[in-house]
Amino acid sequence: MIYLDNSATTRPDPAVVETYMKASLGFFGNPSSLHTLGVEAERLLNEARNRVAAYLGVSSNEIIFTSGGTEGNNLAIKGAAKARKHRGKHIVTTSAEHASVLATCQSLEAEGFEVTYIDLDPRGLVSVESVMAAVRPDTVVVSVHHVNNEIGAIQPVEDIGKRLMDWPNAMFHVDHVQGLSKVPLSLNDAHIDLCTGSAHKIHGLKGTGFLYKRKGTNISPLQHGGNQEFNVRTGTENVAGAVALAKALRLMGERGSELKRLESLKGYVIKELKKIEGVIVNSPLEGAPHIINMSLPCIKPEVVVQALAEKDIYVSTKSACSSKESEPSHVLQSMGLAHERTVSAIRISFSVETTKEELDRFLMEFRQLIPELMEVAQS
Amino acid sequence: MIYLDNSATTRPDPAVVETYMKASLGFFGNPSSLHTLGVEAERLLNEARNRVAAYLGVSSNEIIFTSGGTEGNNLAIKGAAKARKHRGKHIVTTSAEHASVLATCQSLEAEGFEVTYIDLDPRGLVSVESVMAAVRPDTVVVSVHHVNNEIGAIQPVEDIGKRLMDWPNAMFHVDHVQGLSKVPLSLNDAHIDLCTGSAHKIHGLKGTGFLYKRKGTNISPLQHGGNQEFNVRTGTENVAGAVALAKALRLMGERGSELKRLESLKGYVIKELKKIEGVIVNSPLEGAPHIINMSLPCIKPEVVVQALAEKDIYVSTKSACSSKESEPSHVLQSMGLAHERTVSAIRISFSVETTKEELDRFLMEFRQLIPELMEVAQS
Repeated sequence: MIYLDNSATTRPDPAVVETYMKASLGFFGNPSSLHTLGVEAERLLNEARNRVAAYLGVSSNEIIFTSGGTEGNNLAIKGAAKARKHRGKHIVTTSAEHASVLATCQSLEAEGFEVTYIDLDPRGLVSVESVMAAVRPDTVVVSVHHVNNEIGAIQPVEDIGKRLMDWPNAMFHVDHVQGLSKVPLSLNDAHIDLCTGSAHKIHGLKGTGFLYKRKGTNISPLQHGGNQEFNVRTGTENVAGAVALAKALRLMGERGSELKRLESLKGYVIKELKKIEGVIVNSPLEGAPHIINMSLPCIKPEVVVQALAEKDIYVSTKSACSSKESEPSHVLQSMGLAHERTVSAIRISFSVETTKEELDRFLMEFRQLIPELMEVAQS
Repeated sequence: MIYLDNSATTRPDPAVVETYMKASLGFFGNPSSLHTLGVEAERLLNEARNRVAAYLGVSSNEIIFTSGGTEGNNLAIKGAAKARKHRGKHIVTTSAEHASVLATCQSLEAEGFEVTYIDLDPRGLVSVESVMAAVRPDTVVVSVHHVNNEIGAIQPVEDIGKRLMDWPNAMFHVDHVQGLSKVPLSLNDAHIDLCTGSAHKIHGLKGTGFLYKRKGTNISPLQHGGNQEFNVRTGTENVAGAVALAKALRLMGERGSELKRLESLKGYVIKELKKIEGVIVNSPLEGAPHIINMSLPCIKPEVVVQALAEKDIYVSTKSACSSKESEPSHVLQSMGLAHERTVSAIRISFSVETTKEELDRFLMEFRQLIPELMEVAQS
């Protein structure tokens, strides 16, 4: 199997699954229980918290474990907007965010918030100036993703964060799900207040993730109940899930040197793709090392996905969370690309496990497939 | 180890963990992906959904996978209240609900809803009449737990559900977390609209659960994003978690005959406890087969928990989700018990694995311990 859909989800590392299994069976106490088993589970949970915090260069009490990226984005944006609504009801974001950010913003619009959506430029980048031009005294949240999940563009979040220092009323949220452990980001240097991470994009487990919440940042919880996770995310803690998340992050950290290899593989694949007639590469060369997006005008992208799947090669059309809607890619639309490019996109996304041999095999099949499909399309 | 804190959490069944591991590694695709790996993961997810639905005697599309009981209770109550706020803003519940129901209701009060909290009677039961007397034309949600998590009382939810048929404006939600697979409940016969379940109370995994949502019941989601789980609970599905939940339910179903054994063990333990001076049993004999609550006026319950833990016996004071608050038990207060009983409660809770030998060992240690602690308390 050649799996090139790692931006949708990654294969869990067997070592992560084993860690989960051991924690699950060996430390099953409820961290809220007063007895030894509870205390041991709580200690393990906090060890996981310390590790995640250390990886991100932040404090332990700034890490809140969640059920994943969608929850993190909802909790951050709704939480900050609702906690600050007496100060203003304006939000700034981009039109190229993940569905969980866009739909969250739309839900807040229905509650009386006003949202400004900034488009990307044709290279796939949001300009710092256009974000700053949208910020107003009543802006309470600015939410910009780090790495775009469809095209891999790296947004200038550090610059935006620095400029937002002049706007203390506006909380800065970054959806870091696609960038985590693949594109360096200092939460401190970027002056980020809220940052979302997910485990299943880094060979961890589905149903686990974290929200970084800078000390002093006040957000309303989505869930009410016990007083777990600093009262920000109640519910019995998924201790084994948190431990597995910390493990996945550590393993990715240890394989950091692979990113240079992926970077060079990406350059190689883009160069080869550009030689194929009918292929237009949408991803910037200077983007994240693991995502390549291209358009195949004239060809239905679902057909490409299925044809490659028959050869045991797995790629995607757009974000998995949007893939079942047969609409144009909102990210490519945000870049102002022509309609035929926005409806014909294919994304291939690498993991640290992806090899040159796999990519050569993909390229070989792809070179054969595209002319065949173009012929069918034109006949 | 003698673990008698199964209402806080249970030890996961190794077979459930193995199922989780296999699904996690073998079906790691994103169910939203268009290719074969996505389709296979989606099929597995829906198989899990079918099994949970079959266990509960409901339809597959009425089951929504969640991250656990707290999320389920929040999603049900906030979701139904917000979706129906144009019809009324009144909620009826009991003052003996789990923290995740009570805190959710309080959060809705802060948003302009009015909540009526019904007290339990001294046996720990809510009367059908008192619930029905509180229901008004503007009541949009009635939320009553099935089995009380502190005392094990079984509430008359079937009768309440039948009576609520006359009030189609009011959605009926039942927190079934403590009763699931331990006390039979027909969601159909009880005319329940929304019902919460959690896996880690039935030897399943933390971070997984479900919400039953009767066909046609409209609720607002807590999280916005992709269109997973019928648009009611977005976010990449925890496929392996759902499969493990279905497995845990199946295993509990297979051990259903153990419940009679637990019932008789409970009767035996209650009889023995009543012989110990200074012990007042709070649980009704006709309650759930796995929970016994007692008060030890004069003794600090934390001391009992710690002293037993030193002997490798694990019990609790009250609900784990409330155990770190050094306040009286709100459940025992709801029953109208005297102050010294509400601040001195100990809960022991069985699982299908609990043996008579373990309970005899507990009783032996307990019989020794209580006079010692009473002497200390009186000196």
